[in-house]
Amino acid sequence: MGDIQAIAKQFTDFYYSTFDSNRSALQAVYRPTSMLTWEGSPILGATDITEKLVSLPFEKVQHKVTTFDAQPSSPTIASILVSVTGLLLVDDSPNPLQFSQIFHLIPDAGSYYVYNDVFRLNYG
Amino acid sequence: MGDIQAIAKQFTDFYYSTFDSNRSALQAVYRPTSMLTWEGSPILGATDITEKLVSLPFEKVQHKVTTFDAQPSSPTIASILVSVTGLLLVDDSPNPLQFSQIFHLIPDAGSYYVYNDVFRLNYG
Repeated sequence: MGDIQAIAKQFTDFYYSTFDSNRSALQAVYRPTSMLTWEGSPILGATDITEKLVSLPFEKVQHKVTTFDAQPSSPTIASILVSVTGLLLVDDSPNPLQFSQIFHLIPDAGSYYVYNDVFRLNYG
Repeated sequence: MGDIQAIAKQFTDFYYSTFDSNRSALQAVYRPTSMLTWEGSPILGATDITEKLVSLPFEKVQHKVTTFDAQPSSPTIASILVSVTGLLLVDDSPNPLQFSQIFHLIPDAGSYYVYNDVFRLNYG
C-alpha cells in the first residue's frame, strides 16, 4: 500500500500544479479511451477532455487538497483509485469552492494514465 | 452507458436505504477482499467493514444524495465506478454533514460486489 499512496500523491501533486499553471499540458495524462464526467457532463478522450479543461471560464485557479485517499482498484493489475476533496480558488473570488474528484489510474509502459475522472463541485 | 447508470443508481439506492435502516445487512455487498477507507482509516474485508459501519456512533441516520456519477471502470470487465456526494442527517442534529463517497463495483455471478469504498465527510 505504501507505493500506491506515494504514486497517487505524486500524481495528484502533478495534476493540480499542472492544472493551475498550464492546463493544456494535462493532455499527457489522458488517452483516447479516457473518460471525464465534469459536473455531470460526460466527455470522452484526451483531446476533448483537454479542450474542456482549457475552455473553463477562469484565468487564475488554485486547487488546495483537503483530503486524499488511494486504494488498489484491481487484484490483477496495479491500477489505483484516488479520491480527493479540496478547495478551488478561482480568479480573485474570496470564496473558495468545495470540490470532489476521483481518478482511476491505469499502469502502462512504466507510467500511469487516467482512465476515469469524475469532478464535482459541492454546494452546501 | 444506460445500463451502467441504471445499475449504479439501483446499487446506491439499495446501499443508502439499507445503511439508514439496517446497517448490518450491508455485509452482503462486500467480500473478503473489499476495501473501505473511512475518514482516512483503511479497513479490509466484509466482516471488519460491517463491524465498522455498525459501530458508528449514531442511532438514526439518513443519506440524501445530491450528485451521482457512474462510469465503466475497465475496458475488459463490466466493472463500474460510482461517485456520490450528498448530505448526512445524523440523529436529531439540524445541521446536515456533507459527504463524498466512491464505490467500485465488480461483477460476479450475475450480481455486483463492492471492491473499493472511500468515504469522507467534507468540512467547509
